Amino acid sequence: MSSVTDAPNATADLSEISHDEIFAGHLGGKLSVELSAPLDTQRDLSIAYTPGVAQVSRAIAQDVELTKRYTWTDRLVVVVSDGTAVLGLGDIGPRASLPVMEGKAALFKKFAGLNSIPLVLDTKDVDEIVETLIRLRPSFGAVNLEDISAPRCFEIEKRVVEALDCPVMHDDQHGTAIVVLAALNGAAKTQGRDIADLKVVVSGAGAAGVACTNILLAAGVRDVIVLDSRGIISTDRGDLNEVKAELATRTNPRGSNGGAAEALAGADVFLGLSAGKIAEEYIASMAPESIVFAMSNPDPEIHPDVARKYAAIVATGRSDFPNQINNVLAFPGVFKGALDAGARRITEGMKLAAANAILDVVGDDIGPEMIVPSPLDPRVAPAVAEAVAAAARAEGVA
Amino acid sequence: MSSVTDAPNATADLSEISHDEIFAGHLGGKLSVELSAPLDTQRDLSIAYTPGVAQVSRAIAQDVELTKRYTWTDRLVVVVSDGTAVLGLGDIGPRASLPVMEGKAALFKKFAGLNSIPLVLDTKDVDEIVETLIRLRPSFGAVNLEDISAPRCFEIEKRVVEALDCPVMHDDQHGTAIVVLAALNGAAKTQGRDIADLKVVVSGAGAAGVACTNILLAAGVRDVIVLDSRGIISTDRGDLNEVKAELATRTNPRGSNGGAAEALAGADVFLGLSAGKIAEEYIASMAPESIVFAMSNPDPEIHPDVARKYAAIVATGRSDFPNQINNVLAFPGVFKGALDAGARRITEGMKLAAANAILDVVGDDIGPEMIVPSPLDPRVAPAVAEAVAAAARAEGVA
Repeated sequence: MSSVTDAPNATADLSEISHDEIFAGHLGGKLSVELSAPLDTQRDLSIAYTPGVAQVSRAIAQDVELTKRYTWTDRLVVVVSDGTAVLGLGDIGPRASLPVMEGKAALFKKFAGLNSIPLVLDTKDVDEIVETLIRLRPSFGAVNLEDISAPRCFEIEKRVVEALDCPVMHDDQHGTAIVVLAALNGAAKTQGRDIADLKVVVSGAGAAGVACTNILLAAGVRDVIVLDSRGIISTDRGDLNEVKAELATRTNPRGSNGGAAEALAGADVFLGLSAGKIAEEYIASMAPESIVFAMSNPDPEIHPDVARKYAAIVATGRSDFPNQINNVLAFPGVFKGALDAGARRITEGMKLAAANAILDVVGDDIGPEMIVPSPLDPRVAPAVAEAVAAAARAEGVA
Repeated sequence: MSSVTDAPNATADLSEISHDEIFAGHLGGKLSVELSAPLDTQRDLSIAYTPGVAQVSRAIAQDVELTKRYTWTDRLVVVVSDGTAVLGLGDIGPRASLPVMEGKAALFKKFAGLNSIPLVLDTKDVDEIVETLIRLRPSFGAVNLEDISAPRCFEIEKRVVEALDCPVMHDDQHGTAIVVLAALNGAAKTQGRDIADLKVVVSGAGAAGVACTNILLAAGVRDVIVLDSRGIISTDRGDLNEVKAELATRTNPRGSNGGAAEALAGADVFLGLSAGKIAEEYIASMAPESIVFAMSNPDPEIHPDVARKYAAIVATGRSDFPNQINNVLAFPGVFKGALDAGARRITEGMKLAAANAILDVVGDDIGPEMIVPSPLDPRVAPAVAEAVAAAARAEGVA
């Protein structure tokens, strides 16, 4: 592992990075548009612009498929947000979300070689968001929905997927779910256990919580309890929105009621996917050899050093502790694979293939402090892309 | 002059450039998004993305003006088209327009150092185009409207200007008008004449024809006749749309009727801004020392060698003849100046300042074959930007 990352042991305790250094790193934004063909001479200008460009435009007018070949759109992922659920900061609006979206776009280039731009929208209306992307469809090749609040995000993603003939993924849902599945498989493999036998508690029924629950069930986990801010989601509750009510029918097989205390007593796995905290005593009450993923960012639900007193395997979203669960392990490769294959959508099979590919990269280095690759491991995105493209072709969506 | 252009004598006769070379130059598109900050280490990732980015997002949430400082949007021009009037090709649709829009975006970077991306819209509805840009407003710093058909372009520009608090310009109108005014001033200066005394015939009442007429009137030209496909636009005609009817009240001061023959007999200046042709005999009928700008692209209204038999000064849009009238002399500097000054709109005064700045670059090199600088002259955009920014500050729109 260590041979392939640029700085494998470079931890990044944010307390060591000054406010000034962070703001200096964002000055003028983090993206730049550059020319991929020269424009230095009259001849260059005649090829790239008038009059030469007219031949290319005419050709596309006659065969619209040539758009993929002769424009940048086929390799362009738009990172789309309305700024309603940005990191753990909540509804801070489209402008304040821009630094995050630029960072995401930069990661697409860095890890998958894809062009990516942020498009942030000054509307929270579901119809308007969907409609805007339909109108912009000729401008891009794929849509990464980002930091859109639940439960709106579920309907927006569903409708954008239906409306557009290109890869669309809400990364807070499915990117997270893919990496969580890879990490849980890694943890189970380390322990010689089968994920189908694990009692899993998912804390948070937002975008990530719902998607993680879904992918775990699809991957064979049978016993999942989901917690929202009011406690265990069960069919007994009358205060559930449509998404949670549906989730209640597929989870909580033992019919538990109560809160985190009841859910975690004897559980094997805690997946923290909310901005909340979890009491040390609840982690202490879990079954032996427990697995704790405290993924809230920037502050985990429980400090990893505390969790480690009770749990056999601990993961967080933090770069300064082992087992960093970071979406960047998934989204660059997923979109690259989908675009490489010319996929018209991103299927469940492509997501499961991505999770498997992420874990495969760890190989023999697997262990309690290495259940997923480093987010900086350059082998991950190509491996994920290859697996996703193969799954797309196998499923006939390419 | 020759010392400052990269290839001043390199003509680019398109017949020398093969079809294959043109298409190879467009393979994969002409733009690339690159990182302007490193993402190589965990520390880089902690600054540019989580957790560091949260500090920047929080700061913008508290003071939205910081968006300009810490995101790329303040230097980002979106090139927006619906593909309804692309070059001389007409309504070829948004996808087929993309190679032109990418070229435009590349020119923004090359000449003004601005980031620029194409946004092409799958709608021709005026309301929907305006509404889409309003929703996307937080994503960019300025709007270059491009290749939108007349008369829709007039209403779209008017409404987008009213709706957005940032520089907006339909380049086919105003970019062309600025360069035409610069070139006509250059021609008049060469001849020791005053443009106020010139009889001007504008052929074409589309986006460029209307805007050129307006800027010439604003600059002091008194005798302008505009031709559309049916002849001289005059108040006698009952078949005029709203824009042309209004134009009729401000042009054609001698009350001429008829077509190109009647308009051009004895005229001093011909401005070709349509996709049509003009007969050699009409050019021959113009006044002595006539000025002919045959700007239709890629095929001028009359071949410059033919026009030269009668006219004292000839200009075209072609790079393989002297006096190339090319919008690239205007739009990069206009937008750079407007953004540099923080202008909320682009005023008539800023456009006139741009035209003057373009001509000033020619300096003592002025002559019948050098009425405007070369489109590749790197001095132009900075000079235009400086003049435009100064005008913006003087007019209080910054």
